[in-house]
Amino acid sequence: MPNALAANDRPAAPPFTARMTSPPPDQPASAASEAVGDAVADRLSALARFTDEPGRLTRLYLGPAHRAAADEVVRWMREAGMSALIDAAANVVGRYEGAAPDAPAFLLGSHIDSVRDAGRFDGPLGVLAAIAAVGDLARRGRRRPFAIEVVAFGDEEGIRFPTTLTGSMALAGRFDPRCLDDVDADGISHRDALIAFGCDPAGIPALARTGGRALAYLEAHIEQGPVLERRHLPLGIVSAINGVSRGAVEVTGGAGHAGTVPMDHRKDALAGAAEMVLAVEKAARSGVVATVGQLVVPEGAVNTVPGRVRFTYDVRSADDTRRRAAVAAVHENVAAIAARRGLAAAISRGHEGDAVPADARLSEVLARAVTRQGIEPLRLPSGAGHDAMAFHRVLPLAMLFVRCRGGISHNPAEFASPADIGFAVRTLIDVLETYEP
Amino acid sequence: MPNALAANDRPAAPPFTARMTSPPPDQPASAASEAVGDAVADRLSALARFTDEPGRLTRLYLGPAHRAAADEVVRWMREAGMSALIDAAANVVGRYEGAAPDAPAFLLGSHIDSVRDAGRFDGPLGVLAAIAAVGDLARRGRRRPFAIEVVAFGDEEGIRFPTTLTGSMALAGRFDPRCLDDVDADGISHRDALIAFGCDPAGIPALARTGGRALAYLEAHIEQGPVLERRHLPLGIVSAINGVSRGAVEVTGGAGHAGTVPMDHRKDALAGAAEMVLAVEKAARSGVVATVGQLVVPEGAVNTVPGRVRFTYDVRSADDTRRRAAVAAVHENVAAIAARRGLAAAISRGHEGDAVPADARLSEVLARAVTRQGIEPLRLPSGAGHDAMAFHRVLPLAMLFVRCRGGISHNPAEFASPADIGFAVRTLIDVLETYEP
Repeated sequence: MPNALAANDRPAAPPFTARMTSPPPDQPASAASEAVGDAVADRLSALARFTDEPGRLTRLYLGPAHRAAADEVVRWMREAGMSALIDAAANVVGRYEGAAPDAPAFLLGSHIDSVRDAGRFDGPLGVLAAIAAVGDLARRGRRRPFAIEVVAFGDEEGIRFPTTLTGSMALAGRFDPRCLDDVDADGISHRDALIAFGCDPAGIPALARTGGRALAYLEAHIEQGPVLERRHLPLGIVSAINGVSRGAVEVTGGAGHAGTVPMDHRKDALAGAAEMVLAVEKAARSGVVATVGQLVVPEGAVNTVPGRVRFTYDVRSADDTRRRAAVAAVHENVAAIAARRGLAAAISRGHEGDAVPADARLSEVLARAVTRQGIEPLRLPSGAGHDAMAFHRVLPLAMLFVRCRGGISHNPAEFASPADIGFAVRTLIDVLETYEP
Repeated sequence: MPNALAANDRPAAPPFTARMTSPPPDQPASAASEAVGDAVADRLSALARFTDEPGRLTRLYLGPAHRAAADEVVRWMREAGMSALIDAAANVVGRYEGAAPDAPAFLLGSHIDSVRDAGRFDGPLGVLAAIAAVGDLARRGRRRPFAIEVVAFGDEEGIRFPTTLTGSMALAGRFDPRCLDDVDADGISHRDALIAFGCDPAGIPALARTGGRALAYLEAHIEQGPVLERRHLPLGIVSAINGVSRGAVEVTGGAGHAGTVPMDHRKDALAGAAEMVLAVEKAARSGVVATVGQLVVPEGAVNTVPGRVRFTYDVRSADDTRRRAAVAAVHENVAAIAARRGLAAAISRGHEGDAVPADARLSEVLARAVTRQGIEPLRLPSGAGHDAMAFHRVLPLAMLFVRCRGGISHNPAEFASPADIGFAVRTLIDVLETYEP
């Protein structure tokens, strides 16, 4: 549907969503945004108290803190005017009916599990902003031609079991029941953990929002990177979730005594690996990031010429062709460096995932909503993976990024300002008001 | 004394030291050398059975295997015609008197302790070759104007206590009694370990071979490097034991998500460290070796831009000025790379030891003895440290290197051929016959 219609459908500037007249993008906080953002920020703090590890935030999938947090989210959803439950895949689902009963749902979601020693924004921000947005519609008695479902997924960080995104995959109709046999570090199976959580795994297939049950998926999330901060923008529109290629390289040379082996007789695996690390860095180009995140010298000692080194690489791009070209360049350079230095370099390819583009039309609705907050609608790729990926080719999907301080995430120092969170809530409200199925 | 006199003093070619007429240097094994070498090689195998770890050779200072090996060496010394004992510093000392009683001693030594999972040649070769050489003199009833002492030191590898070379330092009159309070990983003090071994630490000061009690120190040892093998030479004469400068560098950047932090916003500690590793390699130059032997990425993960890296450096040379210049170049380059990449690099200097030159006159005696085996007398520095270092500025010292396969040492694959060992024994006999105080 053209967006002109959507604009017509917007309510006449209710106080909560009062439009600003283009505030300076670097300091766009209005009192209204701050108040909304403060309320969500308070709930983020409250939710952060549910942790498996005293003194820091660690909320693992299907653990006791996850269970307590899920119950709290159910209460907040109900308070916001939704019916709410924990489904068979441990998703917390709140539903706000449309003008007619049983209308297909517009999905808003993110996750409430966390990494170890996490920040409080990664995941919960999207869930609590969505609840706040629906709460605003409910307070005003607004009904749309579609239902709205807010979903708090529980398995996004992939810390506990080998698989991840199982909650969002269940809603996308792509849940693979074989993952129920996976076990965690304590030997507890995924199936038993779900049952202990109160879920009936047999009910998972029925969760699929396929066959017209859902219209679209929209996720708000902190950026986890520095782009918005650098551009002085509170919000951004995700163009695509980057594809990723990972691998590992084992470099083998010849160990030797650091004092007795002349330089021209060495096969120094670390010196070779150092050149390769720089080759990975150089393989990055416009739209491609490339990283060596781990490097190990297994028998390293101050007085030994290293004979063996292992390192990983991680190459990402929103453009699959560019990503593959960069990986090919890495492989070529690794081989050339090894050959020149008389080393062996064994490359093992790891995880490969193609880019997931955001839906153009839904992103345009989102961009217009951002613009109406007085914010330039910057498009940027997401370097990290998100629940939204589960809906690739199943539902139109889009993501709203929220600026976070210093680009820091997966860290207690993670921070998004109440003002920016307020803009996110207002943008979600705008999308819910203007989206047409 | 001029060497012409020494040559006059040589016996008229006894069968055991029969001179060869310049055999091809790559295959110089004569039947006589082989036979002598075989006998020493058999004893090296026999000694290798004394180990603290079944299935591999690990003979730690003052451990049970060291004790058993020391007793065996005492037996072999006595069999070779020496009086022998274990002294207060756990050195096994065999003495072969000179023509007159209580003459000052020419010292031949090396060590019988080992690294973990060691080869059988590093250390024992020098001890057993010296015993074989003295045995030859004894069988022929040869007495020289000086006594000969063969010493098997026990604390060369420095595995057990923080100090090392304490046995050779005791003979050099440089033993520091404070080291007796050092404790090993099990909390056993150096003093208690000596007492348990059967030694009386109070007797250590009296061991000093100073004040005219000794004339010189000569050590045969495997090269532990590939130079002799590359030059097709069974033996070499050590010009100096390299000086060494060690240090550690801690590189601090900013950790970040490998997917979300754009390349131009990164402060990748590992990419910076990789450049620094290559700068260390480039700091090597003629006569200087430079090594990064250890590198650690403490919080490394495949999907993380590394925020912190630690690595070590080790720079060695026989020329102290060149070594210091190379270290200065490393420090400058580390600082420049850090500055260019916006990283912090904290350098902590570690062990510093100046080069120990071999005595020119004693080395010339040694070189002539090597030449008389039909072997080109190549001078080469020692990259590794040795007991000989303890006698720096105390006694004239020299070292004879024996070719080892592939330059491999500190490894069960360590190997020196019986033929090469035979040349070493014959060279030691020649030195004992030709050396003039």
